[in-house]
Formats: sequence, structure tokens, C-alpha cells
Amino acid sequence: MQDASPSDATSPSPDPSPDLSRGAAWMDGRIVPTAEARLPVNDWGVTRSDAVYDVAPVWDGAFVGLDRYIDRFMASLDWARMEIPVDRAGLRAILHEIVVASGLRDSYVAMVCTRGLPLIPGTRDPRACRQNFFCWCVPYIWVIPQEVAARGARVFIPTGEDGVRRIPEQSLNPRAKNYHWGDFTQALMEGLDAGFDTAAVLDVEGNVSEGPGFNLFAVKGDAVVTPSRGVLEGRTRGVVMELAEGLRMRVEARHLPLEEFLEAGEVFLSTSGGGPTPIVDVNGRVFGNGAPGARTLALKAAYWTWMNEGPEREPVDYG
Amino acid sequence: MQDASPSDATSPSPDPSPDLSRGAAWMDGRIVPTAEARLPVNDWGVTRSDAVYDVAPVWDGAFVGLDRYIDRFMASLDWARMEIPVDRAGLRAILHEIVVASGLRDSYVAMVCTRGLPLIPGTRDPRACRQNFFCWCVPYIWVIPQEVAARGARVFIPTGEDGVRRIPEQSLNPRAKNYHWGDFTQALMEGLDAGFDTAAVLDVEGNVSEGPGFNLFAVKGDAVVTPSRGVLEGRTRGVVMELAEGLRMRVEARHLPLEEFLEAGEVFLSTSGGGPTPIVDVNGRVFGNGAPGARTLALKAAYWTWMNEGPEREPVDYG
Repeated sequence: MQDASPSDATSPSPDPSPDLSRGAAWMDGRIVPTAEARLPVNDWGVTRSDAVYDVAPVWDGAFVGLDRYIDRFMASLDWARMEIPVDRAGLRAILHEIVVASGLRDSYVAMVCTRGLPLIPGTRDPRACRQNFFCWCVPYIWVIPQEVAARGARVFIPTGEDGVRRIPEQSLNPRAKNYHWGDFTQALMEGLDAGFDTAAVLDVEGNVSEGPGFNLFAVKGDAVVTPSRGVLEGRTRGVVMELAEGLRMRVEARHLPLEEFLEAGEVFLSTSGGGPTPIVDVNGRVFGNGAPGARTLALKAAYWTWMNEGPEREPVDYG
Repeated sequence: MQDASPSDATSPSPDPSPDLSRGAAWMDGRIVPTAEARLPVNDWGVTRSDAVYDVAPVWDGAFVGLDRYIDRFMASLDWARMEIPVDRAGLRAILHEIVVASGLRDSYVAMVCTRGLPLIPGTRDPRACRQNFFCWCVPYIWVIPQEVAARGARVFIPTGEDGVRRIPEQSLNPRAKNYHWGDFTQALMEGLDAGFDTAAVLDVEGNVSEGPGFNLFAVKGDAVVTPSRGVLEGRTRGVVMELAEGLRMRVEARHLPLEEFLEAGEVFLSTSGGGPTPIVDVNGRVFGNGAPGARTLALKAAYWTWMNEGPEREPVDYG
């Protein structure tokens, strides 16, 4: 931990205008650089990963689809039995405030609530904690680097009896957005070691589920299929489903066995950190002769039109 | 987040002797009060729960069984492919240093390593992060409050198709001590709501697994049975197994179906935050007419003798 006290004893006041250009955070009513926003090491958000969160994109100076993310965050809070000290309008105001403070026109904006610390030290009751709510933003994150997205991603999916599987729904509700990413991390390291760009995981029954920060889709004829269970219901997944219908594609949310996924004509992933992104290789199975598919590219184009010109843009007033 | 800068501009120096009596932490070579030790909000230890840790007890002025905890922490680090900037002797020195700084004679002492932050912002590769290693201590934590332990704990275990189940081993290695506690948290809230003292969970196959911070045991005649798979191999679980053999009990580590657990003569839990602790009620099934069992009490007595007088005590030099 860095010493937050000024090192020069002749100028004791905190810097009146800290550099927020790499991101600003809101904590307990104060705005600080994201790089200086910190959480107690024994907050249960750390020691029990007892936290829910959401992340909304700001693109070209506007939040896009913000209500979708706020809706999900509120639902995650309810599920976790957590309370935040602001209402929906207050949350929205904070999210705008940190983006304005940072000046970022393309940003990844997080809203987070952790269980916090027990009101009486030593207590082990999650109901007896004071929650810790905070928000932070950083420059827009491309979950798949743009140059990889342009050629199409190569994705590793662990298989076999010993392959890592998604934490099942019976252990943790995947629709309440949470930080339990241990399964993803293991798959990711294995995939990166083997030269893939990223990784996704199967559920315990052998169906395709999701990856670290993205949902998966298969294109079969005029149908777009995406897993329905045991996955986060991604906001961009939802947008893609709506756009697919607009492009006269049939949308199916259902079980998607790995075999069927591998036999699809095109496959792609969706994320709020980059939109629909072509996949050209899964475990060595090459799709479309290694080039992004036409339907995927149509959805990608529709998504970026929606991001740049769509009705859910909510401009940030940078003043 | 509290402002760490002095509020009085006429005395800019940090307090030269902060109050460490509620716990001291080691971060980047500095000793700070545990209450002021903080982690970046976007450290992957938070945002991906990508962290391993361990917790060793200090009892009556001495670490007890410290090598057992250091061994496991080192194994957890290896599994997670994380590195800390000190060797075994250096780690031991830091653990002693924070306990000395706090003056605590009974303490819960944590050693933690998080994935940290990527060396290049925006990178999504766990292998490209600089790890964050730190240690902290607080007053000894009784996982089950002492007055509850004295009468015997009442434990809730979710059952039925919708009951929360332990995150399976195929999703996350339970022997690498980690902070993925979402399953425990859900079971705990359900159990506490229903008036129980704590909760434990079954694995997906219906075997007893473990609870938040403790292992489970069943006493059947002269045998002590504890789950062998899908659980953390608790250091106190290991000590209890050794002590049971010393008391001429047979130790069996194997699958332990819920039905068999409920039919046992005695059941108990083990934790480094309190040792062997009788359970007198599971889901309304009362054991031993509601009184702690004789074998459990014998193991509890043996454990506290081992803690107070055993060969693995390593005195802290408070100076």
C-alpha cells in the first residue's frame, strides 16, 4: 500500500486537483483517482468474495443502455440482500459524476457493493455487516483486443473429465453478477499457455456456458443459439438477441451442447467490452476457413450502429 | 475510504505510533493498523477473487503449528501460479513481526496473495500481473462463539433439489485455500434466518462437505469419519485426525453421505478458530439428547492441551 500522506512535510494539504484522467472513483461521497480507491483487506467482499457488481459502458461521450445495467445491479443487490445508500437516481448521478470527473469519453464504469465488515468485530453473520458501496471508472476495456477481434478470436474450452467446469447454478446464482471467477482463471491460464486468445468453460453437463466477461453464440442457418442456463444474462447478449431479431434471425436461448457448438457454421462471443466478436477457432476446430462469418459481422455492424446512434445513448455532460 | 492525510495542516507528519492493538498488517514492507490496510478496488483479488490465503492461529503468545499453515499457503501459491517476494523464512519473520507489533497474545494471522493488477492496463492475462502479497492479524476469531461451542452448535445443511451445494472440485480446487465463499454465504443466511448457529453444505452428490471456515466429522463407534474430497484439508482437521489416533480411535477420510452423517452417534466440526466443536443439532435432528458427545469432548480437551502445551508451539518474542 502506498503512503497516502504527502511526503513533503512543507506542503501537507492533499493535492487539490489529483489526476483523474486514468479513471475516477466514488467512495463515501469523495471522488478519488481509481488508482487510489481501496478496500479494507478484511472486507468480506475480499475475504468471502461476498460482493455484487455491474459494469456499464460509456462510448463516445454517452452511457449506452445504462438502465439495463442498473436494472441488473439492483436485482443482484436484492439477491445478495445488500443495500446501497442511494436510490436509482442517486446511483445514476454518481456514475455520471465519476465519468465527468475523469473526462473519459470511452469508459468501463463499475458499480460495486461488498458485504463490508461486521458491525461487531468477530461476528460471522453476513446480516450484521455494513455494506460498502462504491463506483469507479477506467478507460474502455476491450475484453478481446481489437486486433484479435478483427481477425477472429481463438478460444480454448477445457474438455475431458478433468477439464475445469463452470461453477454450477446450484452453488452460485450466475445471474447475480459476482466475482467468483476461479473457474475462468484456471481455464484462461491453460488456454493462454496453449496459444489461444481466451477461454470459455462447459457446464458440468457438457453444455457450453460462458467465458470471463463474455457470453457465447452459435449461428445455425438463420438461427442464433445462446446458452440459457448457468450463465450471466449479459446485457450485450440481450442487445445482440434483439438485433438478431431485427436482422430476421431466429433466436434460441437453450442448452447448447459442445458438439452442437462445434458443428455450427459460425460462432461468436458477446461482451459489453467490445460487442459481438467473431470466433474462428475453438480447440483447433476452425470455423469459416478461419475468417469471421457473415452473420457475425452483420451483428457486429448492427451493434456498433446501436452504440453510436441508437436510442439508448445517454450523453454525459462534461461541462 | 478514509482520508489518510492528516486533517490538521499544522502537524503534517503521520502519527509516529499508530494504534496497532486491534491488529497490525504488513503491506509493501510497511506496518500499518489492519483497519487501515487496503487493497485497490480493481485488484484481481477483488474483481476475479483471484487470490490464495491462509490463516494461522497465535494462542497464548505462540504460533501453534505454523509450519502446517505455511506449507499449505506455499502449495496454494504454486497451484495459483503466484509468487511472493519473500521465502519461507521471510514469510515467517513477517508473521512474527505483525503479531509483535500488535501485542496480541491470541490472534488470527492471515497471509494473502492476490493476482494484483496487470503490468499493462487493460490486459486480461493473469500471467501478466504483478502479485500483491500482504499479511494482517486481528484478535483471535472464534468461528463458533464460545458460549455456543460450550452447549454445542446447531447447524443447518441445505437439502432438496434447490438446496445450495458446495462449489465442486471440478470448478475450483478446494485444497488451494481461496475466497470463493458464495455458496457458504447463501447457506449461512438461510440457516441463520431459520435460527441455526451456522451452516454447512453438501456436495453435488449429496455427501457432507464443509462449512464456512470449518470441516465436519462424524463419530461412529470407535471410528471418526471426515469427508475426503471436495473440501479444504483443514490444518485443524489434520491435528484432530492425529489426536484421534492417539486416543485409539480409527480415522476414516472418505465420502460421507448426509444420511450416514445424520445417523452418527456424535458429530462435530473443526476449525483453527476454536478447535473441535460439538454439534448437537443438524436440521432438527438432535444428537446425544442435545448434549456434546463424550468422544468430541475428549478430542476437544486433547486439542486444547496440544494448543497450550504441545510440541508445535513457537513463541512470539514480544520483547
